[in-house]
Amino acid sequence: MEASQEGMANNSSGSAMATNPHLLQMEEDVLYHFGLSTKKNNLQAMFGEVKFVCTGGSSARMEVFAKFMLEELHMHLPAGMALCNICSTDRYAMYKVGPVLVVSHGMGMPSISIMLHEVIKLLEYAQCKDLTFFRIGTCGGLGLKPGSVVVTETAVDYKFEPVFELQALGKIISTPTNLNKDLAQDLLSCSDQSDEFDIVVGNTMCTNDFYEGQGRLDGAFCDYTEQDKMNYLHELYNVGIRNIEMESLCFASMMNRAGIKAGVVCVTILDRLKGDQVVTPKEELRRWEERPQTVVARYIKGTFEKKLK
Amino acid sequence: MEASQEGMANNSSGSAMATNPHLLQMEEDVLYHFGLSTKKNNLQAMFGEVKFVCTGGSSARMEVFAKFMLEELHMHLPAGMALCNICSTDRYAMYKVGPVLVVSHGMGMPSISIMLHEVIKLLEYAQCKDLTFFRIGTCGGLGLKPGSVVVTETAVDYKFEPVFELQALGKIISTPTNLNKDLAQDLLSCSDQSDEFDIVVGNTMCTNDFYEGQGRLDGAFCDYTEQDKMNYLHELYNVGIRNIEMESLCFASMMNRAGIKAGVVCVTILDRLKGDQVVTPKEELRRWEERPQTVVARYIKGTFEKKLK
Repeated sequence: MEASQEGMANNSSGSAMATNPHLLQMEEDVLYHFGLSTKKNNLQAMFGEVKFVCTGGSSARMEVFAKFMLEELHMHLPAGMALCNICSTDRYAMYKVGPVLVVSHGMGMPSISIMLHEVIKLLEYAQCKDLTFFRIGTCGGLGLKPGSVVVTETAVDYKFEPVFELQALGKIISTPTNLNKDLAQDLLSCSDQSDEFDIVVGNTMCTNDFYEGQGRLDGAFCDYTEQDKMNYLHELYNVGIRNIEMESLCFASMMNRAGIKAGVVCVTILDRLKGDQVVTPKEELRRWEERPQTVVARYIKGTFEKKLK
Repeated sequence: MEASQEGMANNSSGSAMATNPHLLQMEEDVLYHFGLSTKKNNLQAMFGEVKFVCTGGSSARMEVFAKFMLEELHMHLPAGMALCNICSTDRYAMYKVGPVLVVSHGMGMPSISIMLHEVIKLLEYAQCKDLTFFRIGTCGGLGLKPGSVVVTETAVDYKFEPVFELQALGKIISTPTNLNKDLAQDLLSCSDQSDEFDIVVGNTMCTNDFYEGQGRLDGAFCDYTEQDKMNYLHELYNVGIRNIEMESLCFASMMNRAGIKAGVVCVTILDRLKGDQVVTPKEELRRWEERPQTVVARYIKGTFEKKLK
């Protein structure tokens, strides 16, 4: 498998993104959850030009974003052609718009972990260089007006620790979950005076559950009081946590292990200091969901146009 | 919200499935990831007759299963009608076939956890009684011919412990993950002499990652040797673990907390003692995926027909 063997020196520092030495011995690598393979697909021809990977939970939202990037980058598809989902399974959806790869990740860290393993290998095999990854998603905010955008400085776990604990072969391996600070500032500066929303940099707490894991009172089970919940949420706020979601910790950990520059940009769909339920009308949520997309699109456009000059 | 207040005594033991006392104080409960609400939907009218919940990762596979149940239960839809997805979001897909509710759960414990919180509340509000839940999925097998079906006796974590550790408000809450032994035996006895596959009862290890978490050598990262991997997998086999997947631990824990009878039936898509990659052709995988569906359909059919007599 030439592609993989030659493709092992590809992140910005010149070292491999996919550091697994066993990959070199494989005759074929089936990226099972995408339905792609190093033998059946010419991954370098398909993905060689990719510079940016944008990922979010919902496959429908990723399709919207791919179409949005097509417009933003002023790219025209040949007559009779449309964007289509590259994945042949229904586990993830994947779209390619010039240098931008758009992939859904489902909900939760195990789901994003499978996608990232496969997309890092994919882009390694494709010999991509100097990549930047973005997670664009939704989250619960803390002390922010709903609809605000949070750029993550550091992802932390339920104990506010900036580590992701991987369980492998009966042991726990801890990896750091800080994100690129310069990129966070660059994303912050992508705001525009005309924007109808605030954008802030803050720490993000990442949980394994939407209900009890985030101190909600409206799950099927709840063994704590409203006071317990509020004490915990205020503690979060006081240590600089501005939003809560379910993927950033694993995302940041895997980006660090791969040596890939990465950012997390999420829109808050409610203020958790004021409630648990998401009651904003669907149409308004749709508009809010476009905000992280807008910010990241501005960043990509700026970088892309700079390179074209 | 009358439905919820009256609906709080609904599992087989006569106590509430959704034990959260805060639900009683809510005027409306928005089941956000399904796009349903206690105010906008008459949940009792829609779901009151449900007796069985079947859940699996893939939404496409759940649609196939719903259509299969329709045939198996000899139910006829009125002319001009077709089954349709009840969820108005793309997070999950949900189908209803008479007493059988079919819902996808995505990949990993955080994803199934959100679905179960919402479906347990949904069926509580609908005043359903004597429910049985099944997870029907795919898994890696240990020492079994690929395509074999494993009925889970107990779900265990990466340390082989039969507990699910929920992280809430900065603390860890451990809950047991054993499943109903009688139901497991009943499912085992649903095999048929004409079946082209083996069916066994065994313990199931549940992980948070498909690659390193399951000791694979083909992820983007791998810091252990093939010998380390094989030692771990043989250790699994020796403590009675027959398959590895990514949802059973959380599923069993939440079923125990809700007091709901539940079973996990998965087909092995490879033998992990012999490899890591899933290389079986798609068409054969499709046929294998039908096996857990067949076993659970036989159980449901048997119970359903017994009740009709």
